[in-house]
Amino acid sequence: MNTRLSINQITVKSWTFEETVRGLARHGIGWLGAWLGPVQDYGVERAAKLLREHDVRVSSVCRAGFFTGKNPDGGGLDPAANERAVDVTAALGGDVLYLVAGGVRDDLDLARSRQAVVDGIADLVPYAAAAGVRLAVEPLHPTMCAERSVVVTLDHALDIVERFDPAHVGLAVDTYNVWWDPNLHAALDRAGDRVISYQVCDWLVPQPHPLFGRGIPGEGSIDIPEITRAIDAAGYGGPIEIEIFNEAVWAADPEDVLHSITAGFERSVLG
Amino acid sequence: MNTRLSINQITVKSWTFEETVRGLARHGIGWLGAWLGPVQDYGVERAAKLLREHDVRVSSVCRAGFFTGKNPDGGGLDPAANERAVDVTAALGGDVLYLVAGGVRDDLDLARSRQAVVDGIADLVPYAAAAGVRLAVEPLHPTMCAERSVVVTLDHALDIVERFDPAHVGLAVDTYNVWWDPNLHAALDRAGDRVISYQVCDWLVPQPHPLFGRGIPGEGSIDIPEITRAIDAAGYGGPIEIEIFNEAVWAADPEDVLHSITAGFERSVLG
Repeated sequence: MNTRLSINQITVKSWTFEETVRGLARHGIGWLGAWLGPVQDYGVERAAKLLREHDVRVSSVCRAGFFTGKNPDGGGLDPAANERAVDVTAALGGDVLYLVAGGVRDDLDLARSRQAVVDGIADLVPYAAAAGVRLAVEPLHPTMCAERSVVVTLDHALDIVERFDPAHVGLAVDTYNVWWDPNLHAALDRAGDRVISYQVCDWLVPQPHPLFGRGIPGEGSIDIPEITRAIDAAGYGGPIEIEIFNEAVWAADPEDVLHSITAGFERSVLG
Repeated sequence: MNTRLSINQITVKSWTFEETVRGLARHGIGWLGAWLGPVQDYGVERAAKLLREHDVRVSSVCRAGFFTGKNPDGGGLDPAANERAVDVTAALGGDVLYLVAGGVRDDLDLARSRQAVVDGIADLVPYAAAAGVRLAVEPLHPTMCAERSVVVTLDHALDIVERFDPAHVGLAVDTYNVWWDPNLHAALDRAGDRVISYQVCDWLVPQPHPLFGRGIPGEGSIDIPEITRAIDAAGYGGPIEIEIFNEAVWAADPEDVLHSITAGFERSVLG
């Protein structure tokens, strides 16, 4: 088993937190990309204990943010919830917390929406730094700009990340979100070791669903190994999270999903 | 009626070419964004005559391209079809022909796919130049990169456009495709008077359909007047085409659609 492979909780969505940790251990997978909900359902302290018992480490926690006040899942900006997300990340022994910027403000002012993201991160950094948690700014795909994230390119995310101490704020790269960018390689060079998390999935043609139609690596249009080589050449080298939003994958037996992913990891992700 | 308003044929999809031209004239609209299919169904020479009789000019013709050989509507690269598209544009008295780049090659090599676009345009330019038709390079939204267009940002489109004589190759800007770009304003400044066509529609939240869920200006998340001001400040000032792919709009009476668009044009497009 490749020691860099991490499975994001959403990829095995039908499993509880406990089933997921036991499943990963059974498959020899040493990393989990955790989501707050399943962890909190199970209990944070119990979750930390279960992870230790199974020698599974947390590569990242999803998620805090929504600094523009626009969140498609409801609710506006909730600083207390963002601080609780930091606490959960630290309690799980993780040190990377994903940030989702939030969608366009009601006044449709993109520049002000984007400034709100910078301001919101600045407000959260001291709390995260004190907890030893690094905040990961993730550019989402431009298709999510209106509803979910006004940060949609690597260069724009880097403009934000570079305002902060590398010890506290870094960049999260997901192949699905960035593969189309003509400036991808220049941006990864620019990012260097400010990349603190790397997620992978594929772009299917045709898309089975606008949000929940992502592919297992190797099934789609992205040259994923090329991106992995570039991100490693820039200085990353850490865990690689497979995060797949896909209704067909979710309907499948997670055992089979893990078999497919582990069987294809060397060829379709590392290359 | 604003003299810059143009209606793209797809916006009144249920109308034939003849119904569209007569409808535009009845509404006092002086510009049509034409599509090859309805024109060819009606007959190119008859179409040109009908346009002259109703004093409707062609702001653009859609479309040629697919230089990567990948076309979701089937067929690969067809140079003869691209030349026929030039002929139709010239016969209609138009001088702007839209190019769609084509999707990612089967080998998933984005760089080679993008080079194929440059090479394909270079091959078509002499024929278009001889016919007095300008080729409009349109960056599509990044969500269409895999399937339809490996050209997905204004700056990348400009990198291509700037290789050619401004008399023969220019840039086409559609609000839907470019609004999310953090580099939008810098790119429009860079483009200057190389912008030769401007299309407008809105981004709806939630999206009713991934391809056919675009909005009438004013109904969505894009600050369209801000983009119109920027494109005019850069040196455009030409017709503004309303191009709306939307199943609900297509199911409505085109008379009502034209009333809505003309009523909102000053406020929601010009601002």
